[in-house]
Amino acid sequence: MTSSEAIWQDLGRIRAESPLVHNITNYVVMNSTANALLALGASPVMAHAVEEVEEMVGLAAALVINIGTLSGPWIEAMFLAGRAARRKGIPIVLDPVGCGATRLRTETALRMLKEGWPAVLRGNGSEIRALFHSEGATKGVDSRHSAEDALEAAQGLSIRFGCAVSVSGPVDFVIHGDSVLRVANGHPLMPRVTGMGCAASALTGAFAAVNRSPLHAAAHAMAVMGIAGEMAAEQAPGPGSFHVQFLDALYRLREDDIAGRLKMETA
Amino acid sequence: MTSSEAIWQDLGRIRAESPLVHNITNYVVMNSTANALLALGASPVMAHAVEEVEEMVGLAAALVINIGTLSGPWIEAMFLAGRAARRKGIPIVLDPVGCGATRLRTETALRMLKEGWPAVLRGNGSEIRALFHSEGATKGVDSRHSAEDALEAAQGLSIRFGCAVSVSGPVDFVIHGDSVLRVANGHPLMPRVTGMGCAASALTGAFAAVNRSPLHAAAHAMAVMGIAGEMAAEQAPGPGSFHVQFLDALYRLREDDIAGRLKMETA
Amino acid sequence: MTSSEAIWQDLGRIRAESPLVHNITNYVVMNSTANALLALGASPVMAHAVEEVEEMVGLAAALVINIGTLSGPWIEAMFLAGRAARRKGIPIVLDPVGCGATRLRTETALRMLKEGWPAVLRGNGSEIRALFHSEGATKGVDSRHSAEDALEAAQGLSIRFGCAVSVSGPVDFVIHGDSVLRVANGHPLMPRVTGMGCAASALTGAFAAVNRSPLHAAAHAMAVMGIAGEMAAEQAPGPGSFHVQFLDALYRLREDDIAGRLKMETA
Repeated sequence: MTSSEAIWQDLGRIRAESPLVHNITNYVVMNSTANALLALGASPVMAHAVEEVEEMVGLAAALVINIGTLSGPWIEAMFLAGRAARRKGIPIVLDPVGCGATRLRTETALRMLKEGWPAVLRGNGSEIRALFHSEGATKGVDSRHSAEDALEAAQGLSIRFGCAVSVSGPVDFVIHGDSVLRVANGHPLMPRVTGMGCAASALTGAFAAVNRSPLHAAAHAMAVMGIAGEMAAEQAPGPGSFHVQFLDALYRLREDDIAGRLKMETA
Repeated sequence: MTSSEAIWQDLGRIRAESPLVHNITNYVVMNSTANALLALGASPVMAHAVEEVEEMVGLAAALVINIGTLSGPWIEAMFLAGRAARRKGIPIVLDPVGCGATRLRTETALRMLKEGWPAVLRGNGSEIRALFHSEGATKGVDSRHSAEDALEAAQGLSIRFGCAVSVSGPVDFVIHGDSVLRVANGHPLMPRVTGMGCAASALTGAFAAVNRSPLHAAAHAMAVMGIAGEMAAEQAPGPGSFHVQFLDALYRLREDDIAGRLKMETA
Repeated sequence: MTSSEAIWQDLGRIRAESPLVHNITNYVVMNSTANALLALGASPVMAHAVEEVEEMVGLAAALVINIGTLSGPWIEAMFLAGRAARRKGIPIVLDPVGCGATRLRTETALRMLKEGWPAVLRGNGSEIRALFHSEGATKGVDSRHSAEDALEAAQGLSIRFGCAVSVSGPVDFVIHGDSVLRVANGHPLMPRVTGMGCAASALTGAFAAVNRSPLHAAAHAMAVMGIAGEMAAEQAPGPGSFHVQFLDALYRLREDDIAGRLKMETA
């Protein structure tokens, strides 16, 4: 099976089974994340109360934790949910938004990694580097370093914490131990819409719900993000219309869109 | 007066008076809910602090409570606001998002119903069934049962709690005691956009602000949702453009759009 | 240098430098605010935890505080961030959303003004009047009075608190002491989209990051908002498509769009 066929197979399962993806994510992107999951064919739920997160995890096929707008009670809920997901054996995706910008973010993400939950750690180059070095400062939630610069950091984190590491940038990398996949799909308008990285993490959760390989689930999600982004950009003069077209493209994505556009290779 | 004329009359009052609709709703849909109310012609306000919800209710013409992302402090604010709205005599709409998925949600919604506030309880079939049976589990916030399956549950809840019950699905039902209205407008793209049910609840609040019949207010809101959804779908290849067109359709809705498309009948 | 050239110069710096604008804002508009800043060319970050706001301010070029969905912990974080921004010397923009509607909002905004942080206070006529009179009630977050009615209030607040005051309405005014600038750009669809006022405040933060004059930064932001709004309205039959086109217009704005459309004058 080619990579393109494997992505199409995963997408078919997502559309047929509508896996419930439980998101504990940031306020900025909750709406756009839910819409990306719905457009893909998955079923999103957002729940963050300590009183209910464990019960909600019990219904879910994947858990996505995104630390974009952290605060004390949310951290507590994330740990309850993460431990419940681990006990249940469903995949966890961690998006370490803004790691390196503040100690709260870096330390919270590191604590999660040290507890060993994530199947996939998915961030931009700055965040992955900050986690690896646990020092330095990123420029807010932006990426300052290319994904390639973060390759060494990603490999180090993957080995240390045993998870796949998915690094977004002009070219995306997904690393699991010695395996490296490179995805060159995407478009420069993507970072001009807030929450595209967060959508990538949520879609990684949906793919992980149907594909047991964290490496392939993460790479397939990045490929679908990038291909839908390319399709959207062809119809969009700016970031407002790009976001609209991106959701339409996720919804309409066909096998030949993937086959004709995929730029994924073993690096 | 036909149903179509009655809906047009309500819509005219909403556009002329811009009733203030106070929403205590979930993080995912705050933006899209506010935009739906503005496109309709109403005036939205979101406020959830225990320090101010009672004062804000004092300015409002309707209160909409939506439990989609509950937590302790929000529940406290919802009860303060609900009791203030009841004392003031303004209509309350309750959207029991995710009831059946977790005990926190089911129990919170039941406590509100038992206090006797809601003029309208508006949810999908799963949520209404879960409240009626107070058992079973829904698949997150999705609907698993058709609106028709939930008819018995809705009638039971309406009789027990004395409110109108509005159940969305491919065909919507609104029930108040022995009265049943059936609305067959809508489009399959609607559940592929997050927050369309929450928008229906908010619009129900706007209609309840200008129409004293909870039964008719709820049915008129569902009809306008469904008609705007049909108009939007004609222009939209996917859920991203659908949402944009839906807001435009709410804003542009004319008397002959309603007269020509309305599928509402006594069931 | 004409006003049009000065705006273009500021916009060029924002696009070249991507200043980090730290927003502590309301749940309703976080997504649309981040998207407006990204479309303009700035770099948004949202962070509200008391544990990290001071550290995040340390990375930022401007701080925007918006009280649209207040609660106790957020107020505490706003004060920590505001004081840190003042110590650091970066400009602070305060958007007093809903002042006059509840005491919590009016009193919180007044406390911030009395501590002397804001470089720019940016609200609608009702809010500015409510702050000046510290009495009366606005209709939720809507504007009930024209910007012109609020001129006296704005001048009073500017003199008392030493900040620029930017008042949005069909015609916008920006006042700093004795100086008054009048911006007549804009379109009636703008108040039909939630968060356009909040976006104006965020853009004011971006302009203040590159222009040391609070008066001119605030006026340039209002001019760019209004011009992008006019360009969007030409493509938009309703508020859904208007919002999409508005983001595209911010992204695509060229020197001749500003030169050809600007309606800014000393009043």
